[in-house]
Amino acid sequence: MWQLPKAVSLVAGHGEGDTELNAFDRALQDARVADINFLRVTSVMPPGAQIIDLPRYPAGLLLPAVYARIASSRPGDRIAAAIGVGICRDRHGVIMEHTVHGSAAEADAAVRRMVEEGLRIRGLTLDEMVTAVAEHTVQRAGCAVAVALFWPAPTGLAS
Amino acid sequence: MWQLPKAVSLVAGHGEGDTELNAFDRALQDARVADINFLRVTSVMPPGAQIIDLPRYPAGLLLPAVYARIASSRPGDRIAAAIGVGICRDRHGVIMEHTVHGSAAEADAAVRRMVEEGLRIRGLTLDEMVTAVAEHTVQRAGCAVAVALFWPAPTGLAS
Amino acid sequence: MWQLPKAVSLVAGHGEGDTELNAFDRALQDARVADINFLRVTSVMPPGAQIIDLPRYPAGLLLPAVYARIASSRPGDRIAAAIGVGICRDRHGVIMEHTVHGSAAEADAAVRRMVEEGLRIRGLTLDEMVTAVAEHTVQRAGCAVAVALFWPAPTGLAS
Repeated sequence: MWQLPKAVSLVAGHGEGDTELNAFDRALQDARVADINFLRVTSVMPPGAQIIDLPRYPAGLLLPAVYARIASSRPGDRIAAAIGVGICRDRHGVIMEHTVHGSAAEADAAVRRMVEEGLRIRGLTLDEMVTAVAEHTVQRAGCAVAVALFWPAPTGLAS
Repeated sequence: MWQLPKAVSLVAGHGEGDTELNAFDRALQDARVADINFLRVTSVMPPGAQIIDLPRYPAGLLLPAVYARIASSRPGDRIAAAIGVGICRDRHGVIMEHTVHGSAAEADAAVRRMVEEGLRIRGLTLDEMVTAVAEHTVQRAGCAVAVALFWPAPTGLAS
Repeated sequence: MWQLPKAVSLVAGHGEGDTELNAFDRALQDARVADINFLRVTSVMPPGAQIIDLPRYPAGLLLPAVYARIASSRPGDRIAAAIGVGICRDRHGVIMEHTVHGSAAEADAAVRRMVEEGLRIRGLTLDEMVTAVAEHTVQRAGCAVAVALFWPAPTGLAS
């Protein structure tokens, strides 16, 4: 709390389950982040933070994250979740999340427009954009997630 | 943040209010946790964490928790909230929440199935399961809650 | 985590965007808090906490907050968000949030009633009440927010 994250990882995944909550759990597992206790946050990319691959972490860790989550119990439904980070070097950036009843490409295009607007309304220039997207076609109960995980050190948990 | 909880308490409660938010407040009061500032988290039982009775805490404490919450303004509506913890000794476990327009027994049965599936998809065995459930029949605006509170020390706040 | 905030700031704002999430971002910007990573919390005013003007903070800060948020994509829709703090000197207090499809005055009146009930059900007396409200009339996609920010020190971040 009251800290500045030093690194961010982007992941995405999708899955099926008996219920939408179990499908959410499988989607997180697909994204290799199912054993984290997420604290959902709103969406600022801290100044100087690095984008890093998912580092090692212990199960049960309390970790702040921005995430997009969409679930559906309508067989045949196509759903997608996207997360996007827009970086303005020397300043901070923005993180946007978006979900659609549609394709990964649609979710990705939408989140990119949102990142651009998020930077524009702050008067920040876009130096780099990274997104992560997952798509799922529902069988019984399905879920797609896209997550930006905040880490306390440039390489993850180690300081 | 970026810590591993060492103990978990399960509570549940229900109540009536002028509005659904006030009913939520009364339900938390019924569960003896109304004076906590909850940070909602997703749902992993940290390895080695104990299940303990609700310890003492100061009003206004910032505390991570998993919770199920259901509110209704339809007189006569029966609502229930359940929280369930599945423990796999020597490994971590899962915490699931569920709400229904129905009875406590239905909510409890559903959350138990979800805990079982949550462990199964992780390849973890179920050594112990604990649930907490509350049911409410709405008069004006009602709410039922079930909460898993995360503590930093094996006995609560004291280290 | 597991701490007691020492001060609270109340702000409110509104805005338009291409999407409801971007409108939320603009509303936060209008309230001068768009560059914070909010961790949403439930709603207890810690004992002895001060109400202070918005202090300085670095972009990207992780900060616990209570917030009311309403968005709409229906042109002409009037929306309002209110946050209210009720203080009982020598004890703790409550923080309530409320949103309406209606005016700032309606949102303010409703949140004041909620604060009064929140104190009454705890057996606390109302010594002081402070609210913040924002109203917006939607053009394309609009949002109104009202936020109570929790600070670790009586003057904000500095201890």
